[in-house]
Amino acid sequence: MTAFDDLMRFERDTGALAQIAGRLGWDQETMMPGGAGEQRSEEMAALEGVLHARRTDPRVGDWLAAVDPATLDEEGRAQIRHIRRSFERASRVPGALAADLARLTSRAHRIWAEARADDNFAAFAPVLAEVVALKRAEGQALAQGGTAYDALLDDYEPGTTAADLAQMFGALRPRLVALRQAILDRPAPRPLEGTFDEAAQLRLSQLLAETFGYDMTRGRIDKAVHPFSSGSGDDVRITTRTSPLDPFNCAYSTIHEVGHAAYEQAIRPGYRFTPLGQGVSMGVHESQSRIYENQLGRSRAFCGWLHGRMTEGFGDLGLDAEAFYAAVNRVQNNYIRTESDEVQYNLHVLLRFDLEQALIAGDLDVVDLEEAWNARFAADFGFAVDRPSNGVLQDVHWSAGLFGYFPTYTLGNVYAGCLLQALRQAVPDLETQLVQGDLRAATGWLREAVQQHGGLYTPREVITRACGAAPTEAPLLDYLEEKFGRLYGL
Amino acid sequence: MTAFDDLMRFERDTGALAQIAGRLGWDQETMMPGGAGEQRSEEMAALEGVLHARRTDPRVGDWLAAVDPATLDEEGRAQIRHIRRSFERASRVPGALAADLARLTSRAHRIWAEARADDNFAAFAPVLAEVVALKRAEGQALAQGGTAYDALLDDYEPGTTAADLAQMFGALRPRLVALRQAILDRPAPRPLEGTFDEAAQLRLSQLLAETFGYDMTRGRIDKAVHPFSSGSGDDVRITTRTSPLDPFNCAYSTIHEVGHAAYEQAIRPGYRFTPLGQGVSMGVHESQSRIYENQLGRSRAFCGWLHGRMTEGFGDLGLDAEAFYAAVNRVQNNYIRTESDEVQYNLHVLLRFDLEQALIAGDLDVVDLEEAWNARFAADFGFAVDRPSNGVLQDVHWSAGLFGYFPTYTLGNVYAGCLLQALRQAVPDLETQLVQGDLRAATGWLREAVQQHGGLYTPREVITRACGAAPTEAPLLDYLEEKFGRLYGL
Repeated sequence: MTAFDDLMRFERDTGALAQIAGRLGWDQETMMPGGAGEQRSEEMAALEGVLHARRTDPRVGDWLAAVDPATLDEEGRAQIRHIRRSFERASRVPGALAADLARLTSRAHRIWAEARADDNFAAFAPVLAEVVALKRAEGQALAQGGTAYDALLDDYEPGTTAADLAQMFGALRPRLVALRQAILDRPAPRPLEGTFDEAAQLRLSQLLAETFGYDMTRGRIDKAVHPFSSGSGDDVRITTRTSPLDPFNCAYSTIHEVGHAAYEQAIRPGYRFTPLGQGVSMGVHESQSRIYENQLGRSRAFCGWLHGRMTEGFGDLGLDAEAFYAAVNRVQNNYIRTESDEVQYNLHVLLRFDLEQALIAGDLDVVDLEEAWNARFAADFGFAVDRPSNGVLQDVHWSAGLFGYFPTYTLGNVYAGCLLQALRQAVPDLETQLVQGDLRAATGWLREAVQQHGGLYTPREVITRACGAAPTEAPLLDYLEEKFGRLYGL
Repeated sequence: MTAFDDLMRFERDTGALAQIAGRLGWDQETMMPGGAGEQRSEEMAALEGVLHARRTDPRVGDWLAAVDPATLDEEGRAQIRHIRRSFERASRVPGALAADLARLTSRAHRIWAEARADDNFAAFAPVLAEVVALKRAEGQALAQGGTAYDALLDDYEPGTTAADLAQMFGALRPRLVALRQAILDRPAPRPLEGTFDEAAQLRLSQLLAETFGYDMTRGRIDKAVHPFSSGSGDDVRITTRTSPLDPFNCAYSTIHEVGHAAYEQAIRPGYRFTPLGQGVSMGVHESQSRIYENQLGRSRAFCGWLHGRMTEGFGDLGLDAEAFYAAVNRVQNNYIRTESDEVQYNLHVLLRFDLEQALIAGDLDVVDLEEAWNARFAADFGFAVDRPSNGVLQDVHWSAGLFGYFPTYTLGNVYAGCLLQALRQAVPDLETQLVQGDLRAATGWLREAVQQHGGLYTPREVITRACGAAPTEAPLLDYLEEKFGRLYGL
């Protein structure tokens, strides 16, 4: 046994334990009895304690020192790169700070939920200020010369800096603001109306999951308040939700989560439980969920097929296929990021990205956050936030200490724009296939070009290899302007 | 922090991790995608590795040496007693033997399943011989001067020896054989006939669970091939199964598992995740499931109430309440322990107890086991085993290395007999309450007298305290002869 073998055996066991933590998280959201919450917290804490001890185990440092990467193949070198990075990051954060953050964010999450229910930002501000201070300290501990925010961002999107994002996002913002305004100056399309049977929605969810290549022998679909995907390898589960008035919620939540799940299911089996055995970054993960949901699932071609299936499932929808497509892609004024459309979604994200950078840098005080949010919102969206639950209190992320996470949503959209361009070249009759509800070539190409590699390449590398060029925001902007220009007669 | 505090903190985390292992086991039987089996084995192995390392962690020995039990209260002393016993047992078994046993029983279980499907004992015998040899070695490593079998039995029923059991079981056997024969000489009662809607069976299951005091806010009911109860404290889940021709299977499986689950739910909350925070032995556990299922659930009084509920749920059953009671308690020739009735069940167990003792002692070779089984079966049941799947291959236990487990089933019945006697004194109008389907006083008494204590007392102590006298087989025999004598007009 070499040091590398010992290290990989240790990492695989750690990965298996992390997968167990994911299974508990799934259970908590889907199956766990309501009265088991406090006990479950203790169970999770015990498991997190084991995981933390393994991630900072001094033997990992010894093994890393004993391994000469030059003796390894490409996969081995990539494993060492991930393990070294994780070990160094875990070792740089003092244990007391990590423990303080865990306790604080648990408390902040509860306070945020109450403040949102009460529409009272002032009730949340003090604890948020504490979270910002600790996250700044964490970022500084990790930074090694760079900025604290970049160090936090690196957790979700390794190798990408705020400067990289600011360049892309700076190009996106004016054209998206202009596109949004032009759309809203046009007459609104008719929405889908009616009430829609839950069992039929769940049958459609199942059909869509299989259509988009979700392997149900290695996954399952359940209902949850907030849809999510969890797990890796041969056990990747998704959840969806139903709304009697809006069957698109269930359908597109399912397709979105299938994008995440299909990525995890497609990673080479030999990578199981190793650092290569999971999606490489939040941005690349989101690129898969978004291209499944939007570029494919909300395309005119696929909407024609979906219109047929929904008519079969629910009866006459009162909209022909063209009007159905317009309803699927309806752009309306809205406050809430998660309820937004393809055009406005990124404006919601850009707002958060700028504000959270300023918070971590100390350029914006938490006491001024609500005002800064509302001013920026009015500037980009042209109307005022009416209450904090529709504004600064709407998202869970900051209460959970997730700073640097928001921009990966838009980065995923940028990547999805690039991937669609490459996919159209690789599958010239994509439209014809989508019309028939045949996603096999499209998802097969994504599987080959992106998903199978897991963590083998860096996020930027995997997109560059798949697309033949480094990612830029241009394809996404062109795609949005072309699609919505045609839809709204601009 | 004292050594005792450190030790208890460590034990609580170990207990929390063990609860997680239980949750994974539940998931595997109820929710896990079919294709995830191999991956799940690796997850479980990683977690078992963590648990094994903690159970044999040298710090536990150091803490135990540093604690003076005389400084502790009754609960603290009981904790130390359990921890010392587990640590010493874990430390006595060589790591290589434990690992060999884990691998061997995994293989033996697969071979047993195939052999049973093929009705071919010869295909199972070689690997069973290996299991017997390793279990004998394990028993000898644990024995400390006693017999290997007693050392194995002690895992399931601490403090009870084969000699104790042999005395009880020796008194049971002739009277049960005689009772069985007398019953089968009488005309058989009419069985329940028809087909029974699955949804209505599951509604009844839910009603029965709540009626018997299962706290659904801290539990849930799902379907599984083999009913079981798992978990502790605030998250104790049960499973049941349905059979379209036999609604009693679902109903009494549910009540049985509720007995186990109610025990775990009733243990003092302060014992959570500690050695006191779980049922004290398999025998005491089985006493709860059995008294719920049989002494209460199959009583004439409760069957009257159940007859009403089943008539509501399924329509006219074609049997009046008296005939329904006779059908619930029908005694028939049968080969299979798990399908047996109250009278014959213990004969099935006694047979296994005698054979497995002989196997471990080396007085019986595995090659002669099938013949020995069939001879004993014919002697006690009066007819011949027709094929191995109806005989020596019917149970999973031996393939899994569970030697010393079978007798705890009958010990549970013996304890249940004693507890019924005490319960009747404590709740004089028990019959009246059962007629009304009111189990609150009965289950409340069991909760107070037995369940809440968890591991505070030894198994024998907890039964003795509850009943006011040491347990003997006499109350069970009297109960069976009285109940079935009346039912069959003996």
